[in-house]
Amino acid sequence: MRENRLRTLWQDGKSAVNGWLGIPSAFSAEIMAHAGWDSLTVDMQHGIVDYQTAVTMLQAVSTTDIVPMARVPWLDPAIIMKSLDAGAYGIICPMISNRRQAEEFVSYCRYAPVGTRSFGPARAMLYGGADYPEHANDTVLAIAMIETAEAMENLEDIMSTPGLDAIYVGPSDLSLALGHPPRQDVPDGPVYEAQKHILEVAKRHGVVGGIHTVTPEYALRMTRLGYQLVTIASDTRLLAAKAAADVATVKEGLGT
Amino acid sequence: MRENRLRTLWQDGKSAVNGWLGIPSAFSAEIMAHAGWDSLTVDMQHGIVDYQTAVTMLQAVSTTDIVPMARVPWLDPAIIMKSLDAGAYGIICPMISNRRQAEEFVSYCRYAPVGTRSFGPARAMLYGGADYPEHANDTVLAIAMIETAEAMENLEDIMSTPGLDAIYVGPSDLSLALGHPPRQDVPDGPVYEAQKHILEVAKRHGVVGGIHTVTPEYALRMTRLGYQLVTIASDTRLLAAKAAADVATVKEGLGT
Amino acid sequence: MRENRLRTLWQDGKSAVNGWLGIPSAFSAEIMAHAGWDSLTVDMQHGIVDYQTAVTMLQAVSTTDIVPMARVPWLDPAIIMKSLDAGAYGIICPMISNRRQAEEFVSYCRYAPVGTRSFGPARAMLYGGADYPEHANDTVLAIAMIETAEAMENLEDIMSTPGLDAIYVGPSDLSLALGHPPRQDVPDGPVYEAQKHILEVAKRHGVVGGIHTVTPEYALRMTRLGYQLVTIASDTRLLAAKAAADVATVKEGLGT
Amino acid sequence: MRENRLRTLWQDGKSAVNGWLGIPSAFSAEIMAHAGWDSLTVDMQHGIVDYQTAVTMLQAVSTTDIVPMARVPWLDPAIIMKSLDAGAYGIICPMISNRRQAEEFVSYCRYAPVGTRSFGPARAMLYGGADYPEHANDTVLAIAMIETAEAMENLEDIMSTPGLDAIYVGPSDLSLALGHPPRQDVPDGPVYEAQKHILEVAKRHGVVGGIHTVTPEYALRMTRLGYQLVTIASDTRLLAAKAAADVATVKEGLGT
Amino acid sequence: MRENRLRTLWQDGKSAVNGWLGIPSAFSAEIMAHAGWDSLTVDMQHGIVDYQTAVTMLQAVSTTDIVPMARVPWLDPAIIMKSLDAGAYGIICPMISNRRQAEEFVSYCRYAPVGTRSFGPARAMLYGGADYPEHANDTVLAIAMIETAEAMENLEDIMSTPGLDAIYVGPSDLSLALGHPPRQDVPDGPVYEAQKHILEVAKRHGVVGGIHTVTPEYALRMTRLGYQLVTIASDTRLLAAKAAADVATVKEGLGT
Amino acid sequence: MRENRLRTLWQDGKSAVNGWLGIPSAFSAEIMAHAGWDSLTVDMQHGIVDYQTAVTMLQAVSTTDIVPMARVPWLDPAIIMKSLDAGAYGIICPMISNRRQAEEFVSYCRYAPVGTRSFGPARAMLYGGADYPEHANDTVLAIAMIETAEAMENLEDIMSTPGLDAIYVGPSDLSLALGHPPRQDVPDGPVYEAQKHILEVAKRHGVVGGIHTVTPEYALRMTRLGYQLVTIASDTRLLAAKAAADVATVKEGLGT
Repeated sequence: MRENRLRTLWQDGKSAVNGWLGIPSAFSAEIMAHAGWDSLTVDMQHGIVDYQTAVTMLQAVSTTDIVPMARVPWLDPAIIMKSLDAGAYGIICPMISNRRQAEEFVSYCRYAPVGTRSFGPARAMLYGGADYPEHANDTVLAIAMIETAEAMENLEDIMSTPGLDAIYVGPSDLSLALGHPPRQDVPDGPVYEAQKHILEVAKRHGVVGGIHTVTPEYALRMTRLGYQLVTIASDTRLLAAKAAADVATVKEGLGT
Repeated sequence: MRENRLRTLWQDGKSAVNGWLGIPSAFSAEIMAHAGWDSLTVDMQHGIVDYQTAVTMLQAVSTTDIVPMARVPWLDPAIIMKSLDAGAYGIICPMISNRRQAEEFVSYCRYAPVGTRSFGPARAMLYGGADYPEHANDTVLAIAMIETAEAMENLEDIMSTPGLDAIYVGPSDLSLALGHPPRQDVPDGPVYEAQKHILEVAKRHGVVGGIHTVTPEYALRMTRLGYQLVTIASDTRLLAAKAAADVATVKEGLGT
Repeated sequence: MRENRLRTLWQDGKSAVNGWLGIPSAFSAEIMAHAGWDSLTVDMQHGIVDYQTAVTMLQAVSTTDIVPMARVPWLDPAIIMKSLDAGAYGIICPMISNRRQAEEFVSYCRYAPVGTRSFGPARAMLYGGADYPEHANDTVLAIAMIETAEAMENLEDIMSTPGLDAIYVGPSDLSLALGHPPRQDVPDGPVYEAQKHILEVAKRHGVVGGIHTVTPEYALRMTRLGYQLVTIASDTRLLAAKAAADVATVKEGLGT
Repeated sequence: MRENRLRTLWQDGKSAVNGWLGIPSAFSAEIMAHAGWDSLTVDMQHGIVDYQTAVTMLQAVSTTDIVPMARVPWLDPAIIMKSLDAGAYGIICPMISNRRQAEEFVSYCRYAPVGTRSFGPARAMLYGGADYPEHANDTVLAIAMIETAEAMENLEDIMSTPGLDAIYVGPSDLSLALGHPPRQDVPDGPVYEAQKHILEVAKRHGVVGGIHTVTPEYALRMTRLGYQLVTIASDTRLLAAKAAADVATVKEGLGT
Repeated sequence: MRENRLRTLWQDGKSAVNGWLGIPSAFSAEIMAHAGWDSLTVDMQHGIVDYQTAVTMLQAVSTTDIVPMARVPWLDPAIIMKSLDAGAYGIICPMISNRRQAEEFVSYCRYAPVGTRSFGPARAMLYGGADYPEHANDTVLAIAMIETAEAMENLEDIMSTPGLDAIYVGPSDLSLALGHPPRQDVPDGPVYEAQKHILEVAKRHGVVGGIHTVTPEYALRMTRLGYQLVTIASDTRLLAAKAAADVATVKEGLGT
Repeated sequence: MRENRLRTLWQDGKSAVNGWLGIPSAFSAEIMAHAGWDSLTVDMQHGIVDYQTAVTMLQAVSTTDIVPMARVPWLDPAIIMKSLDAGAYGIICPMISNRRQAEEFVSYCRYAPVGTRSFGPARAMLYGGADYPEHANDTVLAIAMIETAEAMENLEDIMSTPGLDAIYVGPSDLSLALGHPPRQDVPDGPVYEAQKHILEVAKRHGVVGGIHTVTPEYALRMTRLGYQLVTIASDTRLLAAKAAADVATVKEGLGT
């Protein structure tokens, strides 16, 4: 079975740089797949992407060596299993708040007897190889998002869930959960402290820490903290930022 | 009928900044529509976009005041008329090389008795208004691309075509036509001189000059030459550039 | 943030006329958006519409001032939050039968600390404006459908749910729930009485009453009862009715 | 091979009532297929429909006995042949202006030795039957639109083209061609006279007359003239008209 | 209402041969609809198919007399009801493990007072007929998959669920559930015995037995056991097998 | 630039086995890409495939090493250039009948100064590499179909066209052209002789011979004649054949 390069990077103590796909297009996904990311995550939660389009995006990512992942919209076995069948090598699941949810999530990502994933890896076998059934349980990643007040109270329970590979901090929801406006790349204060605390608990349990950031600078800062999966913005945000900047330059030059 | 703001800008002697849409997605089109451009052109030639998708992109642009345009893949009445029916307020047509082609092109953009456009502005009336039929001939723009060796020999003939509103230089093809590798933002030399010459002939005939550029700096330089329609790169290129830059920053910081 | 005109109409004591979109097409949605409705609801429950298509329809509605809403297929946080992120200004949720469901529903429509909506308004910020995060909780509408036997027993509990903006009667399901064949525009009898009763309870709690009707006449009758959100038929039904009527006229004239 | 019921109706001296599909959706097409039309034409010229969507619409029509046809955007062998391969039982081709164009058009609809249609009826054999190759030339209809000034001068030449089954008048373009604003359902005057004249020439050559109308009344009037293929409006127009009328009734009743 | 031919076949004591659709295309669905199957099931669980595409596939199947069914991804009222509204004449639901789940499943397939299906058969009425509302409860099939360890312990409870029409064995998941690698067409041993046992319990309760197989030979063997609904492979698998075989023959002949 | 393995095979005197894609789906394309073909051709002529879908299929093929090609619907620069921009490494163009057409075709496939291809390889550079512009002219294949009576009279003229890489025989159209019913895998007689003659002329001019076949046996026979590009059937045909065969086996076993 094709290896999961994220696992390899992490085992080597390295950090992975993840891109985020919210534009529902296999072509923009392929453009992103040539930009140097270690992995790309199709965002079916806040991205404007649903399953049928997500599959074409996973195919586009598969034209390269980049690890394809999916963020699902909710803790729902249907979309988690469909995403895995479509060849996602990792699932990022939002709003995991307690041990039961964490266990359910992991269970949806693993075949029996470990879990409850239903068998039928239609596209996953094309991507992963004919021996996908034997190795899938040890290859695909189960990554739980930590972003609610309830989760902050259950960190030990969540992190100690057998089979949980990594956690992923969603700073906007975490800010809201802690009583602040939704912000990313928070420089200090309670949300920043929470990000540190989450990582410490994760590491203590051998769980990899991941986090969403907006700028390369903050991403690097997070890797220095010990986060080994850092996402920078999203295709949406990169496009919007670059377009606005270039237009502003011309408009300014034109004096309009 | 809703005005064509490009005409207004040009009549006021101003330059318009045009964005370019090659990603086949109405969502990326809507993102671009919020970045400050004066107009956006759906590229059905070299963009990965066909008519059915192009319509959804024109709709996305229509959620704002940005002028929607289309570049068609070839001098073909079917796609030119379909694009106008779909609400494009301007058509950029590639590889116009002589007077006959220029006349045919203009004719496809105008109803009888001026031209040969077939009547049926299904979406154009929703976008433009109920009086679209009366004013369409004076509102939609016919913009011919100048980019072949043959066109360089027929500039006077082309520019003097009645009803031709603007020309648009495609620097890559123009470079190839002049015996050079395909380049954009050419700083000087024969291709640059050609760009200047084309504009001079255009202006002499009261035709607006347009050109494709890659950077804001070059776009500004072109406006100083007198080009009044400047495109900067494309959604594809903006996304690719920004993603590659941000990834490189992190990778460099990580020492990988 | 762009206002929600339904709220304004209701605050002025006026009724809103809502259109219903079940044809999976952004073009038919745009046609409907030019027919004079106050709001348009993309029906993802009984309409032939799923999320990815729904987004293009919301974009089409956004080319006008019509308020865009969505009916979701079920009380499911994933699709409710995705619809809001896509720019829906109101969510109609089917089969709300008790207080717990009503509270969950409202919670999915509001950011913390009021509710549990996850943050990421990708398209909603383009449509609503940059200050969407601050005002969304007070702008988007949570509208619960009352259409089950269980709901009829829990009207007080449901209507008193904090944050519930409106209720919406589904007459067909309500008829079934009360032991009758599925009918709409019921002139009198127990279903009609139930429609009156539901409205009375709603008004007592300051909740706006909405209802699905088939004809303009019945819609008007409902507004006279006090319903402030009336839907007439659907694109599907309007098209089918008009086509059948026109064909019948010709066939009759032809004597076939 | 499945019969072409339009041929049968015409041979029996009857008129066929044709519906028009401009909404790019297989579901609206299926709704229309249940409204009683004799045939339905997918409009790839002024409808918002391209080939890939058109195929799904032809499939939807094929769930019933309604004869499926296509209007192509232009006299172009690619789209004519692709539409036939997709199972269209008739092709309406716009802007046929002279004998050469009429001959080319017919030729694209017929296999050698009669014509130049390329062989590969992928979906047509599923719809028509295994013996499609033998009978297609005698079954599918070639219908030329008469709507230009040039065509009015070449009526005899066009109508006498071997293999031309019917002509179809486009009143809007015909009006423009004769120097009038684009109108349909013209009650009298030169455009009306032209409609009569075209039909007379057609009948003299054994060619069936078809025409686009807006209302059932005018359609009937045309059948009384002798037109045997009458289209009433389009899905787009029927939906827009019915929606606007119903909304207006309610708005009037509400006093707004 | 159009009859459900599967019910007729079963009442006559006959077995039905079911095809499986996992390729997201209405054209491949139509090809399959001409291959002689008694029914075709659109697989929204392990097939690469989501609702919006599934509808177009159900339409394609409806161009013939083949009974259209859907396998849903999970026990979720939203997708079950949407599939029925789209015209599916049977729902195959995965991983039914106990009586409560079986009852919920049946309930989602039936209108009140029998069940809780919400009313709005938009496409189902086009396919089934105007009297669909009266007869749907007795026509559409509720088919529960038996494939988990928990289900094996609750067979009596599940099979005796009122309204359950049939069960369907998923051999791969059943194998996993029994501690074996995921296999299909198992010749003997505990999985084979389980397949026999499930059928015996089903028959005792008047429930039809269905099973997924890979080859015609095994399908026949299962019908001899008493299974009355046998699926052979899937479009995906048939295509992959035939393509690989033909390529291998040529490659072998070429000596490469 | 990524090599074109077909060129390599041919230079080594070997034959390539080509698959044919007529199902409009990136998933069926990916299935085919794992069946062992040397190249896969997306058929936009008789396949049910248009450009926008074709791109997703080319992406699917690009997840493997299989050479991606496209058959265009007609000798039309728009679709030929768009297909190349989308990453096709070869273009098969139907109905090339004389030298002028052959020259035009080759010209559309090559950048100036050799040809007239317009520059903008949006996806081709992602697939082929950053040096695509320099090497594209020598890498992508121009393959002309020989299948008309006129072509049979102009074989020398066509085959000697500079830059023509290969020819491709369409036996059905060739049969029609020679006055026979459309057949493939013709065992002998005039069509068979024509296939031999075409190859002889091709080889004399250093042009590779290609041909469409239905069975592996006939494909092998053609390679023994000297054809170096043999296509077997199509995804459509393979699926239809295998499904019909398996169903027939079961039905026969069931005695129905």
